[in-house]
Amino acid sequence: MEDTIAAIATPAGVGGLAVIRISGPKSSDIAQICTSQSASYEPHKATFTHFLDPRTNEQIDEVIITCFQAPKSFTAEDVVEISCHGGHYIAKRILQTTLDNGARLAEPGEFTKRAFLNGRIDLTQAEAVSDIIASQTETSHQTALQQLQGQLKEKVVQIRQDLIDTVSLLELELDFSEEEIDKTHYNEINEAISEIKSTCEQLVDSYKNGKIYRNGILAAIVGKPNAGKSSILNALLQEERALVSEVPGTTRDTIEESISHNGIEIRLVDTAGLRTSDDTIESMGISRAENVMKQADILLHVIDINEETDPEPFQENGAPVIPIYNKIDLAPDRAKESQYQGVFTSATELTGIAEIGDAVIEKVLGRHHNGAESSDTMVITSERHRKALQSAVESLEKALVSVENEMPSEFIVVDLRDALNSLGKLTGETTTDDILNNIFEKFCIGK
Amino acid sequence: MEDTIAAIATPAGVGGLAVIRISGPKSSDIAQICTSQSASYEPHKATFTHFLDPRTNEQIDEVIITCFQAPKSFTAEDVVEISCHGGHYIAKRILQTTLDNGARLAEPGEFTKRAFLNGRIDLTQAEAVSDIIASQTETSHQTALQQLQGQLKEKVVQIRQDLIDTVSLLELELDFSEEEIDKTHYNEINEAISEIKSTCEQLVDSYKNGKIYRNGILAAIVGKPNAGKSSILNALLQEERALVSEVPGTTRDTIEESISHNGIEIRLVDTAGLRTSDDTIESMGISRAENVMKQADILLHVIDINEETDPEPFQENGAPVIPIYNKIDLAPDRAKESQYQGVFTSATELTGIAEIGDAVIEKVLGRHHNGAESSDTMVITSERHRKALQSAVESLEKALVSVENEMPSEFIVVDLRDALNSLGKLTGETTTDDILNNIFEKFCIGK
Repeated sequence: MEDTIAAIATPAGVGGLAVIRISGPKSSDIAQICTSQSASYEPHKATFTHFLDPRTNEQIDEVIITCFQAPKSFTAEDVVEISCHGGHYIAKRILQTTLDNGARLAEPGEFTKRAFLNGRIDLTQAEAVSDIIASQTETSHQTALQQLQGQLKEKVVQIRQDLIDTVSLLELELDFSEEEIDKTHYNEINEAISEIKSTCEQLVDSYKNGKIYRNGILAAIVGKPNAGKSSILNALLQEERALVSEVPGTTRDTIEESISHNGIEIRLVDTAGLRTSDDTIESMGISRAENVMKQADILLHVIDINEETDPEPFQENGAPVIPIYNKIDLAPDRAKESQYQGVFTSATELTGIAEIGDAVIEKVLGRHHNGAESSDTMVITSERHRKALQSAVESLEKALVSVENEMPSEFIVVDLRDALNSLGKLTGETTTDDILNNIFEKFCIGK
Repeated sequence: MEDTIAAIATPAGVGGLAVIRISGPKSSDIAQICTSQSASYEPHKATFTHFLDPRTNEQIDEVIITCFQAPKSFTAEDVVEISCHGGHYIAKRILQTTLDNGARLAEPGEFTKRAFLNGRIDLTQAEAVSDIIASQTETSHQTALQQLQGQLKEKVVQIRQDLIDTVSLLELELDFSEEEIDKTHYNEINEAISEIKSTCEQLVDSYKNGKIYRNGILAAIVGKPNAGKSSILNALLQEERALVSEVPGTTRDTIEESISHNGIEIRLVDTAGLRTSDDTIESMGISRAENVMKQADILLHVIDINEETDPEPFQENGAPVIPIYNKIDLAPDRAKESQYQGVFTSATELTGIAEIGDAVIEKVLGRHHNGAESSDTMVITSERHRKALQSAVESLEKALVSVENEMPSEFIVVDLRDALNSLGKLTGETTTDDILNNIFEKFCIGK
């Protein structure tokens, strides 16, 4: 029998109210003991009462208790939620009292883990709980919500069912037929596996965008000293975040801030201007800038259009580059010259700034993105899911080779079973403690 | 008719769940519209549903909705609580959707203000809501909880009732009697007013302790350079908070940290060592130290017992002083010498440290305090309450002078009415918008 866990479910800090959550067989008892109730609480009913320390009968707070009866709860176990006044002391004190009376402190993500272990949600839905809490923009939120509601799970369940059907067909032949599989049959099986493989590949490919939906676009603002990189950052943020001066080399350390553009998070990193410098701190900043450029999804190359620089921006690493021709207010006619392909901006007059966001999203997502559009497309957002699907694709490819070579059924079945196993890891039907720990240790406590 | 207000009731930040609270006549409608429900929600029932943006039908989150029907709610109005996944984006998005559908953003403390204006709680209870959230220790919490549960209110209601009885008696005589009040009667009235005055005075006096229960004790750690003040602070905090070195004058700015000792908060302020210094920054620190000493409830005068200093500590301002003879490990026998009256400590060996807390509480609260004891005593914790009660005491004193001079009833009644009015301000029966604004603007939003 599982033990009973408890944690503060609301963020730390001072607010109007805090919620302590208890899950497990002793939840109801603890709620009764700590509120001096002889009868058990009616499920799903919010009841106003006094919470007290049963050892001393000292009142701790006026609270609202809501009990949820297994399996109709977040964890599919008996759950009690205690809503108390916000503040540092009370929530901790109430939690401590539940621990003194039979609960133990929940580990990070343990409530969600129990929901998974009790079969209420699959592993992709459990992961979505964490994503949904971390989401900062409409798109990351929508993607996580779809996953929470089981869209990915259903898709994978469907793929697995198709695979199981194919395996069954092959095994049936294995059992009842002494004859070899005929040519037409091989063609049918080839077709079935190819279709499954194609569905998996589409999902693998969706990770490119899904990753962006979930984590945003990392855009490094790079360029020569005094091109106006920090001014562009400030203009994008609509605040004076970065120190700006006319002295080249003002920005030394990298500065990272996020904006949401059409529902997509763009993580902007302002970097030190690239030049050879004798200043040690500035040199360290330039080295950091070079590191950021390696990780970036896109480079915003800021160029002072009034400087006689090569209009062709550098293209050192794989990330695509958007040239930002800045200080256009000082040379308005240059924008008409055909050698300049990029965005024309004036950070001081705030012109061309929104176009930067449009250009970033178009370049990275390959089209003009808007929030609503993305919600119709099924994407995966987790490297773990991509790996599992990729591994399934590889097994399916092996199976296809066997089919093409008209190998006996058992050879094909082995690879199809591997694919099934990979997909099972994705949804958590086959999984290990390591995988689970790795997933849930990233959760916050109380979820 | 009141409008409908909404706010996020849980602290900002990332957690398992967040709660958005709506109060006012439109609450139920907003809940129905935003969850596509045709029927109204059953009161006090926690219902799992999907929250959506009614303009676009876009789903925002899976939530639990609990409706509370007027007057059985926190504000005594219709209230809806929406419990959603924690995280920056969702709670804000849900709040925005309620605002788009008929609510307006609540001001700080507006939920509690409505509970007061609707007569569910009096003003002392409303203030206790804020105190209970801010409380950091058992004693501050218990004091606030008692006040929230109406102990002060009931006490003041009783005092007012006694006053009203006396006034009625006097007014009855005014109306029906042409004769002068007789001597015996003056004595009776004198006795009644004296008793009321004495009760009020006891409450005024309780503020000395009540203030400490609520705000803690401000203890300034003072003394010569290198006496070990920062080491004492670190030992009390059980961490390396303050920079410590053998160089006199290490601490320049003041450092404030809190500990809880026997349920009482002690706010420790480490100060720069007092000496004449040519260093500008150190001199500024010393000047700050002198300011802190003026505000402190108690001074912890740290003395290196191995230095040939005057064992009698300075007593410049009104605050009591506890001599802390430090570095006793280097001179263990000195503790036996009779000229040293104070606490003997070794910050390096952590001896005598708990005794500092005991000594502080005994000196400030005038006895050996423990948490449980204080909960039986009625105390006031607010300067506003002290002023109102003090003002009542002064009116009662005037009334007593009139009684002693055997003045006509109407003279006595005028002063008794003033006292009633002062007490009415305390509980909020007679109050002004200024007083209310002043109280509720200190609340957090969502309470």
